[in-house]
Amino acid sequence: MSGPVRISLDAMGGDSGPAMVIGGANRSLTRHPGSEYLLFGDEAKLYPELKQYPELEKKSQIIHTDISVEMGEKPSQALRRGRRNSSMWMAIDAIKQGKADVCISAGNTGALMAMAKLCLRTIADVDRPAIAALWPTVRRDSIVLDVGANVGANASQLVDYALMGSAMARALFSKERPRIGLLNVGVEEIKGLDEIKKAATMLRQIDLPFEYHGFVEGDDLGQGHVDVIVTEGFSGNIALKTAEGTARQIGTYIKDAITRTWITKIGALIASGGFQALKRKMDPRGMNGGVFLGLNGLVIKSHGGTDAKGFASAIDLGYDMASNMLLESLSHDIETLHQSLSNNEEHT
Amino acid sequence: MSGPVRISLDAMGGDSGPAMVIGGANRSLTRHPGSEYLLFGDEAKLYPELKQYPELEKKSQIIHTDISVEMGEKPSQALRRGRRNSSMWMAIDAIKQGKADVCISAGNTGALMAMAKLCLRTIADVDRPAIAALWPTVRRDSIVLDVGANVGANASQLVDYALMGSAMARALFSKERPRIGLLNVGVEEIKGLDEIKKAATMLRQIDLPFEYHGFVEGDDLGQGHVDVIVTEGFSGNIALKTAEGTARQIGTYIKDAITRTWITKIGALIASGGFQALKRKMDPRGMNGGVFLGLNGLVIKSHGGTDAKGFASAIDLGYDMASNMLLESLSHDIETLHQSLSNNEEHT
Repeated sequence: MSGPVRISLDAMGGDSGPAMVIGGANRSLTRHPGSEYLLFGDEAKLYPELKQYPELEKKSQIIHTDISVEMGEKPSQALRRGRRNSSMWMAIDAIKQGKADVCISAGNTGALMAMAKLCLRTIADVDRPAIAALWPTVRRDSIVLDVGANVGANASQLVDYALMGSAMARALFSKERPRIGLLNVGVEEIKGLDEIKKAATMLRQIDLPFEYHGFVEGDDLGQGHVDVIVTEGFSGNIALKTAEGTARQIGTYIKDAITRTWITKIGALIASGGFQALKRKMDPRGMNGGVFLGLNGLVIKSHGGTDAKGFASAIDLGYDMASNMLLESLSHDIETLHQSLSNNEEHT
Repeated sequence: MSGPVRISLDAMGGDSGPAMVIGGANRSLTRHPGSEYLLFGDEAKLYPELKQYPELEKKSQIIHTDISVEMGEKPSQALRRGRRNSSMWMAIDAIKQGKADVCISAGNTGALMAMAKLCLRTIADVDRPAIAALWPTVRRDSIVLDVGANVGANASQLVDYALMGSAMARALFSKERPRIGLLNVGVEEIKGLDEIKKAATMLRQIDLPFEYHGFVEGDDLGQGHVDVIVTEGFSGNIALKTAEGTARQIGTYIKDAITRTWITKIGALIASGGFQALKRKMDPRGMNGGVFLGLNGLVIKSHGGTDAKGFASAIDLGYDMASNMLLESLSHDIETLHQSLSNNEEHT
């Protein structure tokens, strides 16, 4: 992509609002000086924050609106109240207008998805969008989708998810043919849902721009044997939150272990170099952002409860995807797949 | 329960077979001297192992069979080949015959479930069994079910699971009215499956022998706010394996952190008291055993890849449940519930 990456931010979203959003933008800017920002929200709140960062101020434009979507609002309510004029809607709409390359919000997930679908629409041939998350593993990062856009998915929707995930992997990991796995259960008697088995058959038969690896189980998620793991949104959401919860739980155990006695405290102090590295690895702020895939535009949902550091990670992710032309590559793959599918049907 | 707890073991199950099973029984016996063992399997392999533990030998009886179920066998194959005469079947059948109070196997899960269902049948009014797992949390342990007996569940099956889980919690945690949560997803737009919502409505309306807490999400699993978490088997299996995988992944990170430099190694050595405690907490062998609930008999599936220490945990679990009369309490609760449900129907 030539020219600056233009990033549109819902500056009112998230538990801590403008300070977190603008602080995050400033952090991300130091890493990506070639980015520009559109900040949507209440100017009276945004400007005092922006003034603190002269470099960011030069690259940013505030677009005022005094309407913002509440964290607890139902999507339908948010649409009634905030369609066209809320900071969330306007930030998304900036992509549609060609004024921005990617939009990031830490606001209400349901409202963000509803507005993004209504404003941007799904890519032709895609039934519905999915939310993709980056997943840390013992090898490199991987991508898991859908982590909560929709409950359930049929075989051809799972195949679309695989294609969208592989386009994202290509954009982020610079890997020509990413490896894709289908999440399933391993208990011999049940071996998964019919739609997953059907998706597996489809993935083995079609000519695809990725390597289909086969089924993977929940304990493969952290192992990094594949680049993308595909599942429907209910189990994907459960898996994502279970992993986050388990990491937090073990974080508590580690803290208890090293603060147990004064001797363990001294030992931990001496080993602090190692613990800093561990802390960085386990810091959820280092990997923040659910990517909405399948829409005519890039939208990223940041954790609502994160801080400037975490929000900056979500912006970084958006920057990487926009500068690697994710959307173009994804649309191309989807079009090619559906053409070959309909050719197949004509010939048979 | 008065008298010894009689434990029937499939001595041929698991990746390491008789040595692991008999070694595990010996460990468990030191903790529960009031137990007796029936060991099913190839006498020529079992006896040399048993001979090593004179105390266990006094409490054990070997019942010979040279047929055993393979780990990779399909349940239907296992049934054709091993019904009535395999170590797995005979170990289960000992419960039906009233010769044992609980059966434990580290063999093929699908075959074990198929044989247990066929041999023991489900409790009257229960559609189908579930597999329950103990789940470590930052507070006390909790119980999660179904972790993989069946894909999907309707509302009344979820209510049965809640009842079975609460009976298990009562037996293991000595808590008169355990707190029960329903696993769901939190994304506002989708808020879960219809059957889960229906189950929630039922749980709020019926008079139950437990406290219904409401929905919980994946990240609540490790927090211990409730005693029992109910879900259908697909997402339950994914959650269980995701948590196991995440724990293993973080275990790798911790190892890397403390072996990073010679300074971190010295620090870790000094803090080793804390690390021993951490290691114990994260040792999957300390919590081993999927409990088959809803059958006319107690059957426990141990991890196939565990060792004697892990297998002993599964036996301990069986001992606790048998001595606390889980089966009787569960059957009573199920009967009471279904009576009150049908009374309700008559009155409305």
